[in-house]
Amino acid sequence: MLPFRSLAWTGHSLRLLDQRRLPHETVYVECRTAAEVAAAIANMTVRGAPAIGVAAAYGLVLAAQAVTEFDALPGVLQGAAASLKAARPTAVNLAWAVDRLLQVSGPDLAGWQSQLRATADRLYQEDVEVNYQIGCRAQAVIPDGATVIHHCNTGALATVDYGTALGAIRVAAEQGKTLMVYLDETRPRLQGASLSAYELLAYGIPFRVMVDGASGHLMRTQKVDLCLVGCDRVAANGDVANKIGTYNLALAAKAHNVPFYVACPLSSLDLSTPNGAAIPIEERDSREVTHIGDRPIAPPGTPVYNPAFDVTPAAYITAFITEKGLVYPPYEETLPRLREVLS
Amino acid sequence: MLPFRSLAWTGHSLRLLDQRRLPHETVYVECRTAAEVAAAIANMTVRGAPAIGVAAAYGLVLAAQAVTEFDALPGVLQGAAASLKAARPTAVNLAWAVDRLLQVSGPDLAGWQSQLRATADRLYQEDVEVNYQIGCRAQAVIPDGATVIHHCNTGALATVDYGTALGAIRVAAEQGKTLMVYLDETRPRLQGASLSAYELLAYGIPFRVMVDGASGHLMRTQKVDLCLVGCDRVAANGDVANKIGTYNLALAAKAHNVPFYVACPLSSLDLSTPNGAAIPIEERDSREVTHIGDRPIAPPGTPVYNPAFDVTPAAYITAFITEKGLVYPPYEETLPRLREVLS
Repeated sequence: MLPFRSLAWTGHSLRLLDQRRLPHETVYVECRTAAEVAAAIANMTVRGAPAIGVAAAYGLVLAAQAVTEFDALPGVLQGAAASLKAARPTAVNLAWAVDRLLQVSGPDLAGWQSQLRATADRLYQEDVEVNYQIGCRAQAVIPDGATVIHHCNTGALATVDYGTALGAIRVAAEQGKTLMVYLDETRPRLQGASLSAYELLAYGIPFRVMVDGASGHLMRTQKVDLCLVGCDRVAANGDVANKIGTYNLALAAKAHNVPFYVACPLSSLDLSTPNGAAIPIEERDSREVTHIGDRPIAPPGTPVYNPAFDVTPAAYITAFITEKGLVYPPYEETLPRLREVLS
Repeated sequence: MLPFRSLAWTGHSLRLLDQRRLPHETVYVECRTAAEVAAAIANMTVRGAPAIGVAAAYGLVLAAQAVTEFDALPGVLQGAAASLKAARPTAVNLAWAVDRLLQVSGPDLAGWQSQLRATADRLYQEDVEVNYQIGCRAQAVIPDGATVIHHCNTGALATVDYGTALGAIRVAAEQGKTLMVYLDETRPRLQGASLSAYELLAYGIPFRVMVDGASGHLMRTQKVDLCLVGCDRVAANGDVANKIGTYNLALAAKAHNVPFYVACPLSSLDLSTPNGAAIPIEERDSREVTHIGDRPIAPPGTPVYNPAFDVTPAAYITAFITEKGLVYPPYEETLPRLREVLS
């Protein structure tokens, strides 16, 4: 049993582990309204594409529970859905989860509320199962003794449990494989150095943290077996939006013939987005770059370029690891077919 | 006139601007012995390949000034030279400057001491002149209106004045060119966000700081005209050791056909090192990665991989910008010939 849980429903509120305060403090915050959930997503109390999807689902449950008139419910849900979707623009799981709850209805207020709650609970449970399946499917490409480079945090903290790329590493360890994991620290918010290191210490998996600029040097001087990352959105052609720095890692992997795998649930696949150029890339506050906590690291008045995500073109991706199996190029054919088969 | 000076000789000591405390505090420290200079180089009070070369030269001056017997001088100089060279292994300018002072001698103690002092002063003056010449030569490849990516700090703080790559940017601005400079923050020690931002604010040159992982995304989404970096050592075949993260930047530049220039004095050229694999790469303390100042950013017990430099293979370098002009491939022919012509 893990000593933490990214999110949990208390019956009347959504309890979130405040990831901004990890690894130093384990503090939980309670969201009692959809607006509080939207704010927690925007300020990254909760983060990770799958986790914010499930959190947003409970945000709609909270919005519905505050309603006392049946006729008011559709409007309230629409409003809450819009603000939750707007909290962060890049990860498609957020919109996907919200849309799944918007498809729910009920014969009366209590029935509708209970259906919403049941759907959110189902998303929560599905996320654990889907992530565990991703981890199992990934074993086909993770040899025993492998050296792996991982970017950002994609573990139990980024999901309900297990995680995508880091979940695959955890399943490998559970199956008795010995790995060495190099964690990109992942500036600016340092999810690798703080959150992924926190998880791997908890799991007892050997790792080393490195600055994001060291991955090329590592691949040039040591044998690296694979890179394993998560993602926030997969376009129909296989282009991937993921945490800033992913593309630089993919470039280094390509130059050194290191396989580059993207682990993600099918809910990250967005066939309505034709390619990476059509994915909105969030730019975040310059303070993420100029400060560590309250400590300034740049002179006052320093201007900043701070895209939160980048796009890695499909050509750099060896395969996608999904809960249904591995997906290989040509992605413009295999990804749409996958959705067809599954829908 | 700049509001700072990386190093200065006071007549009886070497005064160093403590770059570990920039950009927050402008504090100078005085080194009165060679051992103090070696420590200041190792702990990065003074850093930058050209600056540590000149600092080491004055370290030998200090060692000589402490000697009262002519016969003791050669041994003292040899000992000080060894400890100064050992302070940091990668930048060849350090060994180059120390060796230049070891070639000096004099008829008596005072004469020898005074020759050493004169040679160190000459290195100091030469460094300003050489850097200014690099800046002038670089103008051939910096168009007006250019967008430039720069890594680490290579400015007046990394040298006696002007700097190499950042000096070229400064000369461009002095000649009336309008540039936009993207500064890699340069983890782990953040020389870009702290030192280069500090310099460009002082010069009034427009810039933005970005995390090191953002360079590929920038090149993929905006027009970047060139990358401009310094270096710590150039091997005979054109492979270059420079601050960690340089190679990842070069990989991104190559993928986007962005010219990648290395600005350096000829003293960075080490024909006795055949290629990058023969350059010793310093690994530094894990605390540089796990802490920002005294603030931990990773959980206690986090293991770290912290190479201070990487090697960029010659094939990624469009040209070297030296004080004598630009040097183009094939480097295994042009670099040795350059040294022949000049010696």
